Amino acid sequence: MTNPTRIELIGVPDFPLVKAGDDLAALIAAALERAGLRPGAGDVIVVAQKIVSKAEDRFVDIAAVTPSERAREIGQDIQKDPRLVEVILRESTRVVRQRPGLLIVEHRLGYVMANAGVDHSNVAAPDGRERVLLLPRDPDASAEALRAKLSARFGVALAVIVNDSFGRAWRRGTVGVALGAAGLPAALDLRGDPDLFGQALQTTVVGFADEAAAAASLVMGQAAEGMPVVLIRGLAWSAPASGGHTLVRPPEEDLFR
Amino acid sequence: MTNPTRIELIGVPDFPLVKAGDDLAALIAAALERAGLRPGAGDVIVVAQKIVSKAEDRFVDIAAVTPSERAREIGQDIQKDPRLVEVILRESTRVVRQRPGLLIVEHRLGYVMANAGVDHSNVAAPDGRERVLLLPRDPDASAEALRAKLSARFGVALAVIVNDSFGRAWRRGTVGVALGAAGLPAALDLRGDPDLFGQALQTTVVGFADEAAAAASLVMGQAAEGMPVVLIRGLAWSAPASGGHTLVRPPEEDLFR
Repeated sequence: MTNPTRIELIGVPDFPLVKAGDDLAALIAAALERAGLRPGAGDVIVVAQKIVSKAEDRFVDIAAVTPSERAREIGQDIQKDPRLVEVILRESTRVVRQRPGLLIVEHRLGYVMANAGVDHSNVAAPDGRERVLLLPRDPDASAEALRAKLSARFGVALAVIVNDSFGRAWRRGTVGVALGAAGLPAALDLRGDPDLFGQALQTTVVGFADEAAAAASLVMGQAAEGMPVVLIRGLAWSAPASGGHTLVRPPEEDLFR
Repeated sequence: MTNPTRIELIGVPDFPLVKAGDDLAALIAAALERAGLRPGAGDVIVVAQKIVSKAEDRFVDIAAVTPSERAREIGQDIQKDPRLVEVILRESTRVVRQRPGLLIVEHRLGYVMANAGVDHSNVAAPDGRERVLLLPRDPDASAEALRAKLSARFGVALAVIVNDSFGRAWRRGTVGVALGAAGLPAALDLRGDPDLFGQALQTTVVGFADEAAAAASLVMGQAAEGMPVVLIRGLAWSAPASGGHTLVRPPEEDLFR
């Protein structure tokens, strides 16, 4: 009898609220230790984009934003605060679709997503000022920095994914995706591997880090749960590490933008 | 200290090859028992589409297919066997995109996907005849039948997802999605739930069964591993059950087809 293959998704409890300038790796290490979770070699730590952005101080004070003419036009067209539209446009290379209440853009890092990931929810405004939160400047670099610090802290080779929830074409509902990744292959290329009957698979590239990001999202929940860090145990891979940017389909390969 | 939230993904080992007419629920129950895995209330059993299709005898003998004029034209255009194109067209309501080697269609059940899910790989051809495998006739009904039988067999309320791997717009790599679901909410509507600071989330519908399907795909692997059944333990939900069809975005809501 073969032993069952097991993957565990473990939500790290009691994670503190993250403020601009916090040492996120230190917060994650402390929370893992408080919970009695000692990461082992090959464990993957999935970190919600929002706390990475907060630690990196990616807040924008919406009152200080002057909308451009274009932002005012789009804001009127889609019934959205033109200052928020301005922030979204500054994070984007182009608008892919606009409809009332909806702005789908190509983010400067290539992600096709709603509102360039600019987020209103769970963004505390301690002095009553309205703030929004941008995506990290470079999620692969954020993941790599966390990976290096956490691997050193625990003395084992870890992987890190920075995840977010994306809407999708053709299907309802958001799913977790990997914005950034370090220490594991974001995409797994199975082209040429034999199938069960020995025929070569024609073309299969698996969005490995996206599947791991979606799995972690199941634990994180999406609202009041406040569980922004998930430890994944038991994932296996043999391909070399690659960043989350490898999951972004280049425009010239893309049939849908 | 709060206890960590844990979700376990357990691959069911030594699953036999599935043949047309097999009682899939009985095979799953036997494989779980052989592995010493006794499902508990709320456990989710994720079953690869391919073995559901095989048990339901969704094979098509490609030599017996006469391509239509349209299938011959498309086959010439995209360099694909016109008989295979004919099978794909019969499973589809329309062609969304065609490029050499690639045919993205709207499947008769609404999924926007490559080749209508018609599959060449891992389809044994014992007598040398070339066969392909269609999606189940009604994956929600397949999931419900498995859910009912397995829940009765183990005396607890289980959920079942029939998953498949889909390519995506804008992102490279396939990810697991839920074609069919029973016993759990396929989509979780968080609209109106408060966020961490008590503001209502504006609109968040989570593709819950898709995230679970993607998580299970991490265990299943995509090629020679042969692990088509995964048990998920520790998932929690409070919304009523809904089928995988609720994850299909209706064309009138869709901006990308």
